[in-house]
Amino acid sequence: MRAASLETGLKVVTEVVDPRDVELVAEYADCLQIGSRNMQNYPLLNEVGQSPKPALLKRGLSASYKEFLLAAEYIMAQGNEQVILCERGIRGLTNELRFTLDLNAVPYLKQRTHLPVIVDPSHGTGSARLVPAMSLAAIACGADGIIVETHYSPADSISDAAQTISTVEFAELMKDIAAVAEAVGRKAHSPVVR
Amino acid sequence: MRAASLETGLKVVTEVVDPRDVELVAEYADCLQIGSRNMQNYPLLNEVGQSPKPALLKRGLSASYKEFLLAAEYIMAQGNEQVILCERGIRGLTNELRFTLDLNAVPYLKQRTHLPVIVDPSHGTGSARLVPAMSLAAIACGADGIIVETHYSPADSISDAAQTISTVEFAELMKDIAAVAEAVGRKAHSPVVR
Amino acid sequence: MRAASLETGLKVVTEVVDPRDVELVAEYADCLQIGSRNMQNYPLLNEVGQSPKPALLKRGLSASYKEFLLAAEYIMAQGNEQVILCERGIRGLTNELRFTLDLNAVPYLKQRTHLPVIVDPSHGTGSARLVPAMSLAAIACGADGIIVETHYSPADSISDAAQTISTVEFAELMKDIAAVAEAVGRKAHSPVVR
Amino acid sequence: MRAASLETGLKVVTEVVDPRDVELVAEYADCLQIGSRNMQNYPLLNEVGQSPKPALLKRGLSASYKEFLLAAEYIMAQGNEQVILCERGIRGLTNELRFTLDLNAVPYLKQRTHLPVIVDPSHGTGSARLVPAMSLAAIACGADGIIVETHYSPADSISDAAQTISTVEFAELMKDIAAVAEAVGRKAHSPVVR
Repeated sequence: MRAASLETGLKVVTEVVDPRDVELVAEYADCLQIGSRNMQNYPLLNEVGQSPKPALLKRGLSASYKEFLLAAEYIMAQGNEQVILCERGIRGLTNELRFTLDLNAVPYLKQRTHLPVIVDPSHGTGSARLVPAMSLAAIACGADGIIVETHYSPADSISDAAQTISTVEFAELMKDIAAVAEAVGRKAHSPVVR
Repeated sequence: MRAASLETGLKVVTEVVDPRDVELVAEYADCLQIGSRNMQNYPLLNEVGQSPKPALLKRGLSASYKEFLLAAEYIMAQGNEQVILCERGIRGLTNELRFTLDLNAVPYLKQRTHLPVIVDPSHGTGSARLVPAMSLAAIACGADGIIVETHYSPADSISDAAQTISTVEFAELMKDIAAVAEAVGRKAHSPVVR
Repeated sequence: MRAASLETGLKVVTEVVDPRDVELVAEYADCLQIGSRNMQNYPLLNEVGQSPKPALLKRGLSASYKEFLLAAEYIMAQGNEQVILCERGIRGLTNELRFTLDLNAVPYLKQRTHLPVIVDPSHGTGSARLVPAMSLAAIACGADGIIVETHYSPADSISDAAQTISTVEFAELMKDIAAVAEAVGRKAHSPVVR
Repeated sequence: MRAASLETGLKVVTEVVDPRDVELVAEYADCLQIGSRNMQNYPLLNEVGQSPKPALLKRGLSASYKEFLLAAEYIMAQGNEQVILCERGIRGLTNELRFTLDLNAVPYLKQRTHLPVIVDPSHGTGSARLVPAMSLAAIACGADGIIVETHYSPADSISDAAQTISTVEFAELMKDIAAVAEAVGRKAHSPVVR
């Protein structure tokens, strides 16, 4: 990934799951992702809080907004104030989709914290067919960005194929996002690789 | 309401809860609303299905998409094919907001039915401060309309004050909606009173 | 059912879904059941509240305890104080079982109301294999009774076969219930048909 | 705790949250608890899987039964086959209790694994008044044990006071448990301290 990043100029976000790996991962990644299942893994939050690299904190599958904000505080209390909050879908009441994307979280969090709030519509829907629509919704309600799984041939993707959009759809989506971002008085920026 | 409607030209949508009232209500209302708590009230669905007036069917608080679509089918099976589906928030996992607005429902339902799908961000958030953002999100992900509580002085509203926006905010919101609607290739229309 | 009841001496509980049917059903049934999907069907609660027959009120699929108690109050406010509360499972977070039986409801409700509280482990688990264990749990935590689906040949049952126990299992279960009821200082009574 | 254990002969169960602490904690504790928020903390599961001490694995707040069993498998795959599963309440739909104790989990898991299944009615209800009833329910539906918070003066307890029963209530409960255990053909054993 590091080599690909150097060649393309794209930034690298990668997940870290073990507090013992934080230092090493931080050498190579531009941003440290803490996954949903580790949102309340305090030793991990603690180590990431001492890293000079920004943290991307994903909301737990059934975490309240308060628990989410407290987990971010936990990182910041260690000195790392570069925390990005990411809504990625909660456990819902039906099994027709893997998760229920909770966009209420976006304006709710934005009104209570200065931290950037982004949205993961890939995990938040579990379905590639819903990703473009929910990406636009995320931007429209104030998200500072989205994190989307894309692959030149989703069917050949080795993980999460069902929720991955093609690079062609991605390019199309970027155009639509730019239009919605402008409609709500914001500007779209270039993507980061992950 | 009928008098106000005649004077202003605004259409009237009103809730009906008793199958015995459907005929009478249909004489005065332009559209019959079936509330969340009655989504599976089959005698009521049955009567509304025999009415010449359109039905606005709100999703049950923990109804699956399939149950929602089947309730609509139940109305249509009686001959009334003018059914509007309305996502209005589901019971969530946290108590920080009254409900979790499930916008995944919008593209999911739009891909499976020709019926119009609208969104109620007032009930779906329970908080006036979130209504504008979530209204825009609803339009961005493909909703055919929104149903919003507004009052010239929300604090004096006799019900649901916490989720009611002012008429000034409403006018502002209508402009923002027009911009987002245009960005996603749709056109905004004039409001209906309720 | 009425004929079977007269012949066997078993009492009849039957569901009523339409307010217009309450009077007729009350002529033949010993107890009027209000299903989960109608827990907040106020015209129905109203009619049942004016009936001389006891009401068996099932908790809504995502109803809070307070909403459940208020629905019971609604019936009682019309004069019918014979209301039985029934916990029957709520929408859960996983799809491995149809519902999550919420037995916390039993002691919670018993501490707040004088009304009898019973449990439906058939709907509350959706799985015949879990019915005996959960029936015993219901009695152990203070339920005043259970409502169980049984059939001499569950596989041939025309509805809810997956959650129906055989009459042989039922007889076995009644013995186990008697033992648990005695262990918690209560006495088991004979069944009512439904 | 170790000193208290030596003096009284009671066994010690304690929580471990950091993979780097497993070895040290295992020297002093008789059993390593993995909390709900760490159910899918794989580096931690990995270390505990290499420990000679038994593991008490608490179910995640919104984990499915399958995810719960897979987390146990993860520990066992490292060689530690002494895993105890603990149901401790899931995020529910109402806010009247902190959690919804999911006793369906007990017979469901017992029918799918040979691992012991215990229940935590203190966290699973969040309310001391419900703990005795739900402890009995847990035993009645087949739990192999319960884990209960008790204090000689709950009001003075430094954590979780609202869900802690007094030692007097605990002694009473142990008697009731013995009676229910016998009614369902099992035998109650002596407590372990934690």
